[in-house]
Amino acid sequence: MTGSETSPEPSPVPSPNELHQARERLSGRVRRTPVIELGDELATQLGTGGADGSSGAGWSLVLKLEMTQYSGSFKARGALNSLLARPVPEAGVVAASGGNHGAAVAWAASTCGVPATIFVPSTSPASKLERIRGYGAELHVVEGHYAEALTASIEHAGRTGARLVHAYDDPDVVAGQATIGAELLEQVPDVDTVLLACGGGGLFAGVALACAGRAVVVPVEPATCPTLQQAVAAGRPVPVDVGGLAADSLGARQAGAIATAVALANRTEPRLVGDADIAAARSWLWEHVRVPAEPGGATGLAGLLARVYEPREHEKVVVVVSGANWAP
Amino acid sequence: MTGSETSPEPSPVPSPNELHQARERLSGRVRRTPVIELGDELATQLGTGGADGSSGAGWSLVLKLEMTQYSGSFKARGALNSLLARPVPEAGVVAASGGNHGAAVAWAASTCGVPATIFVPSTSPASKLERIRGYGAELHVVEGHYAEALTASIEHAGRTGARLVHAYDDPDVVAGQATIGAELLEQVPDVDTVLLACGGGGLFAGVALACAGRAVVVPVEPATCPTLQQAVAAGRPVPVDVGGLAADSLGARQAGAIATAVALANRTEPRLVGDADIAAARSWLWEHVRVPAEPGGATGLAGLLARVYEPREHEKVVVVVSGANWAP
Repeated sequence: MTGSETSPEPSPVPSPNELHQARERLSGRVRRTPVIELGDELATQLGTGGADGSSGAGWSLVLKLEMTQYSGSFKARGALNSLLARPVPEAGVVAASGGNHGAAVAWAASTCGVPATIFVPSTSPASKLERIRGYGAELHVVEGHYAEALTASIEHAGRTGARLVHAYDDPDVVAGQATIGAELLEQVPDVDTVLLACGGGGLFAGVALACAGRAVVVPVEPATCPTLQQAVAAGRPVPVDVGGLAADSLGARQAGAIATAVALANRTEPRLVGDADIAAARSWLWEHVRVPAEPGGATGLAGLLARVYEPREHEKVVVVVSGANWAP
Repeated sequence: MTGSETSPEPSPVPSPNELHQARERLSGRVRRTPVIELGDELATQLGTGGADGSSGAGWSLVLKLEMTQYSGSFKARGALNSLLARPVPEAGVVAASGGNHGAAVAWAASTCGVPATIFVPSTSPASKLERIRGYGAELHVVEGHYAEALTASIEHAGRTGARLVHAYDDPDVVAGQATIGAELLEQVPDVDTVLLACGGGGLFAGVALACAGRAVVVPVEPATCPTLQQAVAAGRPVPVDVGGLAADSLGARQAGAIATAVALANRTEPRLVGDADIAAARSWLWEHVRVPAEPGGATGLAGLLARVYEPREHEKVVVVVSGANWAP
């Protein structure tokens, strides 16, 4: 082994104090998103608790309606915390994004009165580009996927002095997303398990840190974007091929170092779901609760419908519905 | 005057005891729909509190997300209360509906295990018919508007012995809708004013009865369906022509006797909004909060956007988003 492979990097995982500061900083500046208690209706529909013993009877489901957050997804929390935590240079901030982080940084910059430049891949849906422009940001569309947009954003930061706000692998961003966990512990004090969608892992890492010792956090990934699953298997972030229905929001090409460290420390097992499961979860949310999730926003629930996570008897499960940036 | 014009009818307005019984009866059987606090963001956007003194500064807005109720609208509450309050004959229940009440009666009947027959006018959108069929009800489409469907449903009740569940002018239905008011007083104890859409007036009457002495309830009607406004002006329900964007949910041809009595007792002034205001309210809800209201469901908010209701300084306004039965 070489020295560089063994020398420990300073851990980027945000400390409990950083989580606390983010909570204080964002109080009254982001929305406290509501929860809705659905009782055992999904458990009953799935017919769980049967003789095969595969799943517990009467587990109950709560949705945290995080798609009602500013900018249409949870990303507003991390973006605003990052902007408020440290001074912003005159050149403003820059971000690369499949769309949701870009909209969130554009929203946060407009809130703080600083300029924002956003690079999005050409695969992003038009509705997300509209939203970014709507917040007054400068928008650049880059041929390719998220990775190509990230490269362009890093070049822009080097050239202009603008501060790069990473979509997930930044302690301030993760500490911002962690406020979702702190909120839901207040709203659902008896929560056992939180299921949420996972791309680069910022949402997962933040909520897992906030819920440590109180609830188990289960990340759900599209089988076509298994970034955290591959990172856990390899013991470190590794590049993966990404695609499929939710790639515009969950298509980070590799998991964050923070999410990987949190997953390894918690012995987390990411669950994988198919595109059909994600589509079924979107339909279920619309048909049963009139909740309009985008594919990535419904991926946490897909883990229950696909039964890649099986709740125990009387378990209380919170699913974070994390975004709704699509055009009806 | 003839005797029939002066002899008082027994008041159909539900008593406080009936409201209390409805609350007990529906507890755990309908969803406690969430609220989201939006602070003064709409007040700021509207630029209210300016030098013209037309409206108060810093009034704040809370949305009650009643479109997440079973069946996709508040109508589930009244329908289920009606079915549970009195025995259902073997022929089951029958209802006439622009769509939402029909879906609610179909849902309630399926919950109670009794048959339901629903008559809808040919003007109802296909998505509402799908939903009614989805709950297993027998569906009949009648040429014309709500009034024609009502006539057909009354004939059916006479022929078969099925119990007619009126969409709004029934004390059990009104008492069911009143549970929204009781809930929101718990969720937003400092509420000053509730704005809500008004068609036949069941939602208005129920919430006004539940909030009596605690909050003022302001009904908002499409200018193209001014049923309660005309009833208040005439001192009794009168037939009006109905049409426009929200006619499928707010197009009752005359206000209920219950709603009229409640409005007259409270000196209520129904507010009228245009179809463009309703469309703007739907857009606002989607763009800012990712709330997917149908036209009728957004009509309460339209009253604020159109400024036909102007909150005072520091007033706390709850808007009920009452339905989302449309197809994205």
